[in-house]
Amino acid sequence: MDALNALHSVTFEIDEVYSAGYHERFLVFLEMAQRNGYVIGGAMTDAKGDRSKAPHEQHYPDLYVRVSKRSRDGVYIRGAKAHQTGCINSHWMVVMPTLRLGPADRDYAIVAAVPVDAEGITYIYGRQSCDTRAMEGGDIDLGNARFSGQEAMVIFDEVFIPNERIFMDGECEFAAMLVERFTCYHRRSYVCKSGVGDTLIGAAATIADYNGVEKASHIRDKLIEMTHLNETIYSTGIASSHQASKLKSGVYLNDAMIANVCKHHVTKMPYEIGRLAQDLAGGIVVTAPSQKEFEHPEIGEIVRKYLQGREEIAAEDRLRILRLIENMTMGRNAVGYLTESLHGAGSPQAQRIQIARQMQLEFKKALAKTLAGIPLDSAEEIAADLDGYMKSVFASVEPDK
Amino acid sequence: MDALNALHSVTFEIDEVYSAGYHERFLVFLEMAQRNGYVIGGAMTDAKGDRSKAPHEQHYPDLYVRVSKRSRDGVYIRGAKAHQTGCINSHWMVVMPTLRLGPADRDYAIVAAVPVDAEGITYIYGRQSCDTRAMEGGDIDLGNARFSGQEAMVIFDEVFIPNERIFMDGECEFAAMLVERFTCYHRRSYVCKSGVGDTLIGAAATIADYNGVEKASHIRDKLIEMTHLNETIYSTGIASSHQASKLKSGVYLNDAMIANVCKHHVTKMPYEIGRLAQDLAGGIVVTAPSQKEFEHPEIGEIVRKYLQGREEIAAEDRLRILRLIENMTMGRNAVGYLTESLHGAGSPQAQRIQIARQMQLEFKKALAKTLAGIPLDSAEEIAADLDGYMKSVFASVEPDK
Amino acid sequence: MDALNALHSVTFEIDEVYSAGYHERFLVFLEMAQRNGYVIGGAMTDAKGDRSKAPHEQHYPDLYVRVSKRSRDGVYIRGAKAHQTGCINSHWMVVMPTLRLGPADRDYAIVAAVPVDAEGITYIYGRQSCDTRAMEGGDIDLGNARFSGQEAMVIFDEVFIPNERIFMDGECEFAAMLVERFTCYHRRSYVCKSGVGDTLIGAAATIADYNGVEKASHIRDKLIEMTHLNETIYSTGIASSHQASKLKSGVYLNDAMIANVCKHHVTKMPYEIGRLAQDLAGGIVVTAPSQKEFEHPEIGEIVRKYLQGREEIAAEDRLRILRLIENMTMGRNAVGYLTESLHGAGSPQAQRIQIARQMQLEFKKALAKTLAGIPLDSAEEIAADLDGYMKSVFASVEPDK
Amino acid sequence: MDALNALHSVTFEIDEVYSAGYHERFLVFLEMAQRNGYVIGGAMTDAKGDRSKAPHEQHYPDLYVRVSKRSRDGVYIRGAKAHQTGCINSHWMVVMPTLRLGPADRDYAIVAAVPVDAEGITYIYGRQSCDTRAMEGGDIDLGNARFSGQEAMVIFDEVFIPNERIFMDGECEFAAMLVERFTCYHRRSYVCKSGVGDTLIGAAATIADYNGVEKASHIRDKLIEMTHLNETIYSTGIASSHQASKLKSGVYLNDAMIANVCKHHVTKMPYEIGRLAQDLAGGIVVTAPSQKEFEHPEIGEIVRKYLQGREEIAAEDRLRILRLIENMTMGRNAVGYLTESLHGAGSPQAQRIQIARQMQLEFKKALAKTLAGIPLDSAEEIAADLDGYMKSVFASVEPDK
Repeated sequence: MDALNALHSVTFEIDEVYSAGYHERFLVFLEMAQRNGYVIGGAMTDAKGDRSKAPHEQHYPDLYVRVSKRSRDGVYIRGAKAHQTGCINSHWMVVMPTLRLGPADRDYAIVAAVPVDAEGITYIYGRQSCDTRAMEGGDIDLGNARFSGQEAMVIFDEVFIPNERIFMDGECEFAAMLVERFTCYHRRSYVCKSGVGDTLIGAAATIADYNGVEKASHIRDKLIEMTHLNETIYSTGIASSHQASKLKSGVYLNDAMIANVCKHHVTKMPYEIGRLAQDLAGGIVVTAPSQKEFEHPEIGEIVRKYLQGREEIAAEDRLRILRLIENMTMGRNAVGYLTESLHGAGSPQAQRIQIARQMQLEFKKALAKTLAGIPLDSAEEIAADLDGYMKSVFASVEPDK
Repeated sequence: MDALNALHSVTFEIDEVYSAGYHERFLVFLEMAQRNGYVIGGAMTDAKGDRSKAPHEQHYPDLYVRVSKRSRDGVYIRGAKAHQTGCINSHWMVVMPTLRLGPADRDYAIVAAVPVDAEGITYIYGRQSCDTRAMEGGDIDLGNARFSGQEAMVIFDEVFIPNERIFMDGECEFAAMLVERFTCYHRRSYVCKSGVGDTLIGAAATIADYNGVEKASHIRDKLIEMTHLNETIYSTGIASSHQASKLKSGVYLNDAMIANVCKHHVTKMPYEIGRLAQDLAGGIVVTAPSQKEFEHPEIGEIVRKYLQGREEIAAEDRLRILRLIENMTMGRNAVGYLTESLHGAGSPQAQRIQIARQMQLEFKKALAKTLAGIPLDSAEEIAADLDGYMKSVFASVEPDK
Repeated sequence: MDALNALHSVTFEIDEVYSAGYHERFLVFLEMAQRNGYVIGGAMTDAKGDRSKAPHEQHYPDLYVRVSKRSRDGVYIRGAKAHQTGCINSHWMVVMPTLRLGPADRDYAIVAAVPVDAEGITYIYGRQSCDTRAMEGGDIDLGNARFSGQEAMVIFDEVFIPNERIFMDGECEFAAMLVERFTCYHRRSYVCKSGVGDTLIGAAATIADYNGVEKASHIRDKLIEMTHLNETIYSTGIASSHQASKLKSGVYLNDAMIANVCKHHVTKMPYEIGRLAQDLAGGIVVTAPSQKEFEHPEIGEIVRKYLQGREEIAAEDRLRILRLIENMTMGRNAVGYLTESLHGAGSPQAQRIQIARQMQLEFKKALAKTLAGIPLDSAEEIAADLDGYMKSVFASVEPDK
Repeated sequence: MDALNALHSVTFEIDEVYSAGYHERFLVFLEMAQRNGYVIGGAMTDAKGDRSKAPHEQHYPDLYVRVSKRSRDGVYIRGAKAHQTGCINSHWMVVMPTLRLGPADRDYAIVAAVPVDAEGITYIYGRQSCDTRAMEGGDIDLGNARFSGQEAMVIFDEVFIPNERIFMDGECEFAAMLVERFTCYHRRSYVCKSGVGDTLIGAAATIADYNGVEKASHIRDKLIEMTHLNETIYSTGIASSHQASKLKSGVYLNDAMIANVCKHHVTKMPYEIGRLAQDLAGGIVVTAPSQKEFEHPEIGEIVRKYLQGREEIAAEDRLRILRLIENMTMGRNAVGYLTESLHGAGSPQAQRIQIARQMQLEFKKALAKTLAGIPLDSAEEIAADLDGYMKSVFASVEPDK
């Protein structure tokens, strides 16, 4: 979603300058992908090495993905993309630069689509909390009986990309535009965590039922608090989309200030929702025995006897919901619901920087000074006039003499 | 905004049942008011007396506004409406019941428009923090050089209302619908506090400039935090409107869950924004001498000498912005920006109750149980099926055997 | 610490009534344990079953630990104790009742010391997040290269306890006193989490160094925030001890209000400290490959190349500190640092109930009414007079006539 | 308290170097003051002017208090001290420098006791929110029927100080020590706000009674939250004193880290306690009519009728407690309970800087690295060794091979 929308407009605007034909190529690729129902992963985050240095200044030139060789039919790329969520269950990746680039970094200004199984690609699978439970057999201890996921580091070692899958190659002055638009879509897309939140709220409500305390006022109040937080994430995402504006190519870009506000809440609220879910779960969420004890011919009966909550609920169902809460707050899904919420699409400080850029202080100072009876300075005048409404609001209102 | 929109649909739906002609009357009133540019205040909150009793059970029957007498041409009302913001600078009031009513409370089911200067109305002006500064002369110490406001208690003592200004009279079963829709609009309307917040952020940014500390990282970070909070209020309001649905009469009603989330943030975030504004202001915001000292022939010079901040800024301008911050966090405007944010359109617990009503726990439990591998119970089945998507999402996904 | 201190005073006070000789027995056991350097675990939390029923009303009588049989030389006990942290690496357990007991629950009023390897005891080991990493070989992925821990459910199946190790047997009216004193010590003892917090702050500071961002103002500010929270836990623990009062047996009992305030902070602050640690760690804390990849003959070199941060820091050391942060926020130690902080010594609501019991509202109302010029009612008079200082403070201060 | 304790040790340590006899003089002054029961105000905060310049570099030399002239019998001082709480109802002031001084600022290194009515002193009274209500007559609207307070700016215009009241004169290298010790005492002294908090909690509990909602679970829970916050302030203050260490002169200095943690909570928690008090008060806290309406021959009866809460409570008592809450959250006492809590003894950032100075990161990194299996670097070794316990803790614990 983020990569395709960003590329729709950026390829269009590159072509306005260079007539490179990228936009047309991109549309062909897009149609092919949609007709086939392909899953496409956006691959942006480079390894980065020493963060005080530009790509071309790094000790290894491959610390950012780059064009290493060219032929008449296409280019070869080298480097790595980190933290690629779900890349192994995708069909294609779209490789993009990860930061603003200058002329010396021209070889790093490469955007291209590549099949996940192209020659020269290696996936280094990341560890997740409790990952090996999936290999134990059984469907309880892994928490989520249906789904899991993965991150991987993707290594490109002389991977060939044919010309028709290249959507930027050397137009380094457009790298910043691409990164900014991608980020704007991507931060808003973290509204998806409110769906995960719905599930965790449901799990917390279920364990409260199973423990027979669902009517206690403090339990009820915690479910309300979880919902209040979760709906805040949802609402800020919706508002960012509502305030979208149309770009030259015809796609819409959502509101950047609100996208950052949304993502910034996502860096905190899921942690508090998770804490409250553990509160409702009780300490048993981290001390319950394994599925194997439940199924043990001798121990199983003892475990069921002592872990019974409300009489009509099977002890095993209680264990299942506890394991789901464990999974979402400490286990494999905590990777996605907590830590990825913190760092994906930019760590908290990245949003604060963007909020700072867009917070229109000159305009706000003009509001304050007007009320306080202080003359505006020129920057504030401009900010106020641009918006055009200061005059109309205040013109007819004169303070008492 | 809130009263008119709510009445548009409620009069329409009463008429569907009773053919009372209210909707037509309402439209006539509305057109008249709009053609004349009239300011209309919604008057809802009754005195309430003993909150454990219904209106007709109260010691004084007037503790809720009621019809006390009837004639062929109209009705007479008695009672009081509390906390009426801006009523004295309005042209008309629309009187409405404040809670769900039963058949024994039929006389309390009265909705009517009444001019603010109708015979029998008395206004009892409320005190505001620092209110008498407005009578001292001078434009600095009152903080806001241009605007102020007021709340009043409105007493109705046999106030006559002609038939054509009556929009409900005795249809007590519609009182709850009116209150709920009014409240839904009204909670969302508290997004207006983000405009007040803009001004306070501007004031805080200005005093940081005047103190010469506007580039310090912690100052910058506090302005960002204020903006993040303020934009959260704004965004949740926008999202509630975006998810509006059309009612029978043709008007739209905004999303109730998000309206409550918005208002609930308004009960907290302005207080934190206010605290941060005082942080940036420095202690001088509560210890600065009065305007009269600044203008005193002997003391004035001393005060200006010792209260100088950055050299190029007049000490008096510094005082002006400090007084604005005082006004918005402790003075007359704190009434509107803080306490009214807390209690207007319902106190915090009222929103939590509404959030609880709409939090769809059965649906959320269905999500959790499906992932945990627990069979759904019937209520959850219904919740899940109603939404129609559980099946489509999960049907094709079977856990490994 | 908690069990021994509580028993010192409670056995003393039982003996005052019953001359049962428990205190002397307890001192003999204590000296024996101290001379041998024994680790003793307090075993309090029963399985509890249906929480709306007393122990003797449960479907299975063993849902609370009880005396099932008696002989001249001692008693036999049955039941289970849940969530026993560290029981397997202890030498002795001290079994105690978990709640207030009535006469019908006399058999449940049993306090006794029992060696961990006594006949009839079964340990059912609890699962911890990432527990099986300890069995993979290697010392990196398990996060903490030196320590781990465990919880277990302990099953007592006709375990014999000789008379000289019994410190309560049937004196059910003392169960509440024991539980309250134990809890008071135990909640204060959660100050220990500030030591764990020190380590996590150190880990966060280390990864900031390794990433070369230790001087960024927002990084610095997050370390300050973590410290501010952590020292709050520490300080409230210290203050509770400082305000200890002497009991009849000669031991001291710490201040209950502050012990609850301390523990209540512990239910929240470690989660925020953990979130901030993950913030400083970066997303790599959940996507880094395993130790086995680092040691792989072919992949190892690639991984090291791309995971290098600051040049002079070995990529493997960076992985080690990331794994420690993972361990403390999602892995085995998160069990102790987060979830146990939430639920150990009582879940959050338990502290709120205790704070409510001790918040001296009558005294506080007396303060407010005196300032507001409202006469005190009798309960408030008593509260105020008991404290003896209202008079001395206010006697000489009379408002202007 | 703060000034006297700080001067006890600093005069002693100056005398160790200069044999200036300050300590003996100080003791004479102290005994005189205590025998007479004098109230003494510490006067530290200078006007400061351009904060990027040292005292001697300022445009006006008097922007910091300084010695302007000397005679055989004493010195003459000029300058101003801002924000002097309670100076007008004190007997003496102790003037002290406000920041670290260098040799060029020698004339600013003056510490002296001066009677509040000494020739040449002018007080410029600060405005407080709602200050003029005290001049309206009546004891309700001013909120606090018994007490009030004031801040003033104090101007020193050639004020003579005899030699025997001078405790530092030119020993500029001791200015920093004085400021640091004064600040350490002073930040801890803000624990006093927990007493104010007790009163506000009492007021909130009283209005809940008067409104008949004192048993509602959410009301109860808010009183608990207020208490939890208030006791946190109290506890951190106590803990700072508990960890005091003895100075050379024989007085004790409280723990600096915890003093800063205490004061930092004071910059936030009273605002939240105040918000919760307003929550319990209801909107009437800002819309209630004045005492004059209550006493009006015609309107009084109407007001009482409609403002009645619980039947047995006089409407006037309800107004009194509302005005107290208004006073403490928006009026004169909000100056002391909120804004002074924020800025007195240093604004929030000042505490964060001190926390940073004392947070022992090297030691904490040593803890983390030891657990992660990373060798310590030399600074960490020293930090760890100094504390002496790393070895003893870890020596006997070796990870499995």
